[in-house]
Amino acid sequence: MSNPLTHLDAKGAARMVDVGAKAVTERVAVARGRVLMSKNTLDLILEGEMPKGDVLAVARVAGIMAAKQTGSLIPLCHPLPISAVSVDFRPDRETGALEIEARVKTTGQTGVEMEALTAVSVAALTIYDMCKAVERGMVIDNIRLIEKKGGRSGHFQREGEEPWDVL
Amino acid sequence: MSNPLTHLDAKGAARMVDVGAKAVTERVAVARGRVLMSKNTLDLILEGEMPKGDVLAVARVAGIMAAKQTGSLIPLCHPLPISAVSVDFRPDRETGALEIEARVKTTGQTGVEMEALTAVSVAALTIYDMCKAVERGMVIDNIRLIEKKGGRSGHFQREGEEPWDVL
Amino acid sequence: MSNPLTHLDAKGAARMVDVGAKAVTERVAVARGRVLMSKNTLDLILEGEMPKGDVLAVARVAGIMAAKQTGSLIPLCHPLPISAVSVDFRPDRETGALEIEARVKTTGQTGVEMEALTAVSVAALTIYDMCKAVERGMVIDNIRLIEKKGGRSGHFQREGEEPWDVL
Amino acid sequence: MSNPLTHLDAKGAARMVDVGAKAVTERVAVARGRVLMSKNTLDLILEGEMPKGDVLAVARVAGIMAAKQTGSLIPLCHPLPISAVSVDFRPDRETGALEIEARVKTTGQTGVEMEALTAVSVAALTIYDMCKAVERGMVIDNIRLIEKKGGRSGHFQREGEEPWDVL
Amino acid sequence: MSNPLTHLDAKGAARMVDVGAKAVTERVAVARGRVLMSKNTLDLILEGEMPKGDVLAVARVAGIMAAKQTGSLIPLCHPLPISAVSVDFRPDRETGALEIEARVKTTGQTGVEMEALTAVSVAALTIYDMCKAVERGMVIDNIRLIEKKGGRSGHFQREGEEPWDVL
Amino acid sequence: MSNPLTHLDAKGAARMVDVGAKAVTERVAVARGRVLMSKNTLDLILEGEMPKGDVLAVARVAGIMAAKQTGSLIPLCHPLPISAVSVDFRPDRETGALEIEARVKTTGQTGVEMEALTAVSVAALTIYDMCKAVERGMVIDNIRLIEKKGGRSGHFQREGEEPWDVL
Repeated sequence: MSNPLTHLDAKGAARMVDVGAKAVTERVAVARGRVLMSKNTLDLILEGEMPKGDVLAVARVAGIMAAKQTGSLIPLCHPLPISAVSVDFRPDRETGALEIEARVKTTGQTGVEMEALTAVSVAALTIYDMCKAVERGMVIDNIRLIEKKGGRSGHFQREGEEPWDVL
Repeated sequence: MSNPLTHLDAKGAARMVDVGAKAVTERVAVARGRVLMSKNTLDLILEGEMPKGDVLAVARVAGIMAAKQTGSLIPLCHPLPISAVSVDFRPDRETGALEIEARVKTTGQTGVEMEALTAVSVAALTIYDMCKAVERGMVIDNIRLIEKKGGRSGHFQREGEEPWDVL
Repeated sequence: MSNPLTHLDAKGAARMVDVGAKAVTERVAVARGRVLMSKNTLDLILEGEMPKGDVLAVARVAGIMAAKQTGSLIPLCHPLPISAVSVDFRPDRETGALEIEARVKTTGQTGVEMEALTAVSVAALTIYDMCKAVERGMVIDNIRLIEKKGGRSGHFQREGEEPWDVL
Repeated sequence: MSNPLTHLDAKGAARMVDVGAKAVTERVAVARGRVLMSKNTLDLILEGEMPKGDVLAVARVAGIMAAKQTGSLIPLCHPLPISAVSVDFRPDRETGALEIEARVKTTGQTGVEMEALTAVSVAALTIYDMCKAVERGMVIDNIRLIEKKGGRSGHFQREGEEPWDVL
Repeated sequence: MSNPLTHLDAKGAARMVDVGAKAVTERVAVARGRVLMSKNTLDLILEGEMPKGDVLAVARVAGIMAAKQTGSLIPLCHPLPISAVSVDFRPDRETGALEIEARVKTTGQTGVEMEALTAVSVAALTIYDMCKAVERGMVIDNIRLIEKKGGRSGHFQREGEEPWDVL
Repeated sequence: MSNPLTHLDAKGAARMVDVGAKAVTERVAVARGRVLMSKNTLDLILEGEMPKGDVLAVARVAGIMAAKQTGSLIPLCHPLPISAVSVDFRPDRETGALEIEARVKTTGQTGVEMEALTAVSVAALTIYDMCKAVERGMVIDNIRLIEKKGGRSGHFQREGEEPWDVL
């Protein structure tokens, strides 16, 4: 009997799934997550952005570079020739949250949701790293897939998630 | 005036903070997070564990290896000679959550909270990757520092977090 | 005169051979090797496997991840979009050997024998690492290509090697 | 009860062993292995060495660089500040074997036998890669620890192994 | 208004440009640079080359391997399946310069000028590293694109640069 | 006779020099280089900096991250626990040059001049990458060590190089 967890074989051993028979198509994935912090820390980051602060710029670069390392970080993930990555931020001053969105494209045989989720995670970790001296209690939260297009499994769109304008 | 965000210089430019004058002491950090999923998916993972399934074993290895890559992933993070890492799991069958804890030690000049948080994040991403074929909507959530010992900034212990027995 | 060692140019200097004119076809490679050890050590590993020990699970992950790093480790090897990797084990309790088999697939312009041999080598090194505290004298042995399909050089099948059922 | 396999915890889960309490001492490890090949292939490599061929030079660099990547390749291996690496070769024209020796030093809390074994393995894989066009049937063989000095476990010297002069 | 710097979006934020719509064609890039040094140092390198010195062999391997890491090193650079790399050297004993040329090919959606420039840069850094004990004042100089073929932007050929015979 | 090129042994073979006997001291290195470009391109970069453009921020991150990868990129370079890195820029609008300075510190057994030179090189390559769409003919030039302190070889200060205020 085949295993419903496709990354395990019939005996439960891990393997890198064979994608050799899948079609080469354009595939897009969008993921989001957020870093919960005090309004004071959020203000420091956003002020830092004007005129030349680097917190979000550094986190953006970290997320983009991590997307390219996804195949090395996630053991059973296929290495992929990524054709585009962007990472954007949206502050929520009400709640003291900094939201992160990553958008990844490829033309290949597997989807890029892991690349998008990895970009969000590493961008969030970078924000934590750069702000931990002022607030050690920040929480990285709600990392989730928003949309996935291309490939056999069809179009996934998480309900209740709107497109948003970036910082 | 010095910048309260120590990873930025007085002009707001990013830099890797100088830790050369900090004491070489033993430092420990513990972080936690969780992956929210349906009970069905959680059951598949846990059954897979008996007798020989690999989801948690693979996620554990991924988290440990990622802890060692922290200095490459997080732009301003210092590379560190880690002396111990462990990654553990605790399923919460009530809510359909798989909780993850990473514990990292070093003898060095900076703390290892980023290593612990990175291990949790990559273990969570690996679980997502291995189970996404059965549930694309899983959410990675509540990644946070639990404890930090050693170094000038003193002992940090997040309130309301108990030690837990592992799977 | 061209050099029979194709990785050297006419003057003997190393180069990465040009594969740009080769056909994009499906290619498979299988490699094997073994770790020679005492029966006692082999028993510890295999018992460890029941119900939840991790030696073989960790070695399997290490081999799969190493296959993806082959292009970084072997200087003149082409980076390849691997489409599948599996690593399996077969204990030989008679002789105290743990045999390892790696199977790699790609759709590309060069074969994946180096990926399969690298996966076997790193899985073997990982077993050595995890067991060296009980037996420092283990030997990694007989790493060899078993089969290679696809591409201009035709089908290679090493004589006297049977397909085997895995642990 | 503690696990005789120190890389597993009492429940059989993998972990990176805590070396924080071990002494910082000078540690040396020497490993050897060999690539079995036809005399014709061995001659091509050795002739290539005169005056300017690169097979052994490339394999030496690959082995040295791999020693530095050991902590990334072997999941539970501690990253180490290596203080010296050398890789040498000795052809055995009688049997058609090319023997490889790696010697690694560190001043740290754990030994460097994995670094030495990894250097030998990757040097051997590189030789295979560079010569596979003329002989696909080469075998990587007899990779073993020769000597280990420094640290609590004392001096290990494999019997019957002599120091040898290099190519 | 679109940004003339295509790696920035309309708001000035960095992104990895979308190359998904570009044609898959064969692309070639050639770059050059040089290391300025005293004649004495240059002589040591070149004598070292006869019969078996390794400075240029090591620098060549370093350049080839760096070409394959370009997508990891340069934040917004696309990872590419390189199909060929060579690195050559030409000493200029008159001026005490060692010139370096890298030639890279791919079949893909973006050019390989960054891979060629990275190969030259890392080969130059490696020469500096290996010779710095005898001359700390060496200068790495004049790293430039010589030629670029394939892709929409047409054929770039830097004026006044002749093909050269290699060492 | 020992080889004046310390990275080669008496027979000319490459090795990673043994630094195990060197003192652990604080070591600093400063390197500089520049990217020659048209005034128009330089203006685009500098305007991009106000208020939120990312060229220099991305190049700075790339340089800092590359400093941490030096031991992986340069074959015979020792891996080092870097304690601080900064990368700064100074435009010269007269000549159309963007100058780069990297400053690296460690407490260890070898110097960090390779880390500083690598940071400058990769920052320069990143600027080239981000601006190549508007000017393919830019040249990376004059990469050199400015200062080196700590360690047995004493204080190196390149003549005629002044400290400079950063952008």
